[in-house]
Amino acid sequence: MIDMRPLKSLISLEQAHEILFNNLKICEETERIPLLELSNRVSAEEIKAEFNVPPFRRAAMDGYAVKASSTFQATDSNPIYLECIEEIHAGDVPTKSIDETQCMEIATGAMLPDSADCVVPVEYTNREKNKIEILKGFAPHSNVSQEGVDIHRGEIVIPQEVVFTPARIGVLAALNRKDALVYRKVKVAVIPTGREIAPLGSELKPGQVYDINTYTLTTLIAQHGGEPVVYDLVEDSFEALESVILDAVTKTDIVVIGGGSSVGERDINVDIIEKHGTVLFHGIQIRPGKPTLCGKIQDIMILNLPGYPTSCLTNGYINLLPVLRKMSHLPPVTKRKIQVKLAKKIVSRLGRHQIFTVMVNDEYAFPAYKESGAITSMALADGYIEIPDNCDLIDKNEIVEVTLF
Amino acid sequence: MIDMRPLKSLISLEQAHEILFNNLKICEETERIPLLELSNRVSAEEIKAEFNVPPFRRAAMDGYAVKASSTFQATDSNPIYLECIEEIHAGDVPTKSIDETQCMEIATGAMLPDSADCVVPVEYTNREKNKIEILKGFAPHSNVSQEGVDIHRGEIVIPQEVVFTPARIGVLAALNRKDALVYRKVKVAVIPTGREIAPLGSELKPGQVYDINTYTLTTLIAQHGGEPVVYDLVEDSFEALESVILDAVTKTDIVVIGGGSSVGERDINVDIIEKHGTVLFHGIQIRPGKPTLCGKIQDIMILNLPGYPTSCLTNGYINLLPVLRKMSHLPPVTKRKIQVKLAKKIVSRLGRHQIFTVMVNDEYAFPAYKESGAITSMALADGYIEIPDNCDLIDKNEIVEVTLF
Repeated sequence: MIDMRPLKSLISLEQAHEILFNNLKICEETERIPLLELSNRVSAEEIKAEFNVPPFRRAAMDGYAVKASSTFQATDSNPIYLECIEEIHAGDVPTKSIDETQCMEIATGAMLPDSADCVVPVEYTNREKNKIEILKGFAPHSNVSQEGVDIHRGEIVIPQEVVFTPARIGVLAALNRKDALVYRKVKVAVIPTGREIAPLGSELKPGQVYDINTYTLTTLIAQHGGEPVVYDLVEDSFEALESVILDAVTKTDIVVIGGGSSVGERDINVDIIEKHGTVLFHGIQIRPGKPTLCGKIQDIMILNLPGYPTSCLTNGYINLLPVLRKMSHLPPVTKRKIQVKLAKKIVSRLGRHQIFTVMVNDEYAFPAYKESGAITSMALADGYIEIPDNCDLIDKNEIVEVTLF
Repeated sequence: MIDMRPLKSLISLEQAHEILFNNLKICEETERIPLLELSNRVSAEEIKAEFNVPPFRRAAMDGYAVKASSTFQATDSNPIYLECIEEIHAGDVPTKSIDETQCMEIATGAMLPDSADCVVPVEYTNREKNKIEILKGFAPHSNVSQEGVDIHRGEIVIPQEVVFTPARIGVLAALNRKDALVYRKVKVAVIPTGREIAPLGSELKPGQVYDINTYTLTTLIAQHGGEPVVYDLVEDSFEALESVILDAVTKTDIVVIGGGSSVGERDINVDIIEKHGTVLFHGIQIRPGKPTLCGKIQDIMILNLPGYPTSCLTNGYINLLPVLRKMSHLPPVTKRKIQVKLAKKIVSRLGRHQIFTVMVNDEYAFPAYKESGAITSMALADGYIEIPDNCDLIDKNEIVEVTLF
């Protein structure tokens, strides 16, 4: 007899999230990673500057290094003339010193001579051999980057807990750092199960479908900074699943089982979690994904997602991702939302928070949802609308908010 | 003498984009990539289903497989009774056949027996040994997933030119595909140059700063699906740059030079491009980033970004990314924009489209911009505002639109 124990009591999605967040374990282990691999990793240390950037005063424009005071009287109609005594390319060190009658040609980024305090941009000059005509007066420090204007020694340039962007990686390069300390990736065990599931490449037996969840979950986890640890398809016997789950809790930070959480599948995973740990919840008022099961064994969270592919992946987005990102020190996903009209009436079920996938076209949302087993419900969708548990119908042409994938 | 040829004529950002898009070469070469590496790659073929998914009729709920007609009269107060003659787990093949007085216990996902056309969910039943009480009538096909409801044979499941998401990768798994044909990554040469630039790990000589642009550009390119090909720092002589650029145009799809585009840097790159190809533009009415230079050698685009780090990276975002993504068949970046108040007056320059980095805090945008050389201008920023060329001032408390990084 199939043990169809009904789900005891469904909890709301908000309650499920509260339990998930109260029970997850944030990964505090760190590793050192070279600059070019730092994108999207999270800083595990506060980084201070050990020297000024730039480490010298430099020209911020192409032009002429001068003493500002020598230009004060200059105008278009009444230019002043200075003698150019040196040219300074970027990377050069000035060798001479200027007085009030002199200047040096200088390139953007080049070191300003100590004797100058200003750069007259080339647009405000004319040149005849070494005689430079200055057409405008400039205040001291004009067009000069002071030493340390970008970064001053001792400044915190990278706080802890920030995500590395190209610009932040550039800051490390400016400071001659070759690597940074980041939190290591969260290891996520992905355990596929279900007697109806066939591994890719095998011949389908009657009654079987190919393994979808391993591929959707693994790529989703990797996209969001996790390190998937994929197990082979497990036969759904107590002994086989128990052995794999107990192995996974010693090797990974969170265990995700795709399938086997439904009441018709003999609740093996509930029994395994109860034997070795604690069941935190079983059943969420959400569709698709009602039978989601969560527990803990030895401080490691077990998230058992429903086996039906859309239920599984929807729960991957709705429940696994927030947990994974929090464990990884990553900020919550920024959801992009748009408001469009509904192209077709949707009937929902009172008491069930429904996630309904839609395609968006010409300001209208069209249903993409087929059934919770249909992976194309998500592959074809641009996003989803959420129908709260106190709503049983959304009419055609009503404005809905679509969360884009 | 530093050859300070002024930029001939600046073009608008819109004109620059038009030239860039008219001259880029979309990569049409393809490669076969395994499922688990397909995330964010672009499909180069239309994929059709070779079989139905699911390949058989299956139960969409846990319950009892019946002939619907045998339940028509059932109500809460007037239940009917059926004999359960078999149990079908997911993955099982039914062995018996039911008549109007019989049913089979069935699990979600399990194959429906040919003799049944409906599943009565377990919630609407009671059981005593093999006698099943049915409390509600159901129409034919209720709670049954028909063969092919998810994917029907011959259907196009993945069109050409779509980006692979976890759900689309799941569709390939459902169809027993182990890989897919995608466009290969666009190879982007990154050539650092400038006499003032020191490679990371070296001792800074007076007048030098560390190489930032290689790191910001390389990580930006990789984040957006490109394959960076990083060259060693090139001495800024005509011969050295010519040799590296000519090498890069034979090995990569687009060449990005960080530095050496400014008028003070002797226009070597302009001369090299003119000798071997065509200059498309030199100078954009944008700040930072005015001296950006674009040309073509042997059909390969050369994009010479200004050497100052913020100018370089800003142009990476504004000019390189749209080109790279288009070459890669990737859709334009979805920009997230928010509207906030400006915390402090900003003065701009008429005739110059200004990109001004800001930090966002408590509904206010605070200037993050220091100078075009300051990499911290971008590292600390949450996004940027654009000040059009016909605007010279935005006042405190004005509403501005921030494009978030």
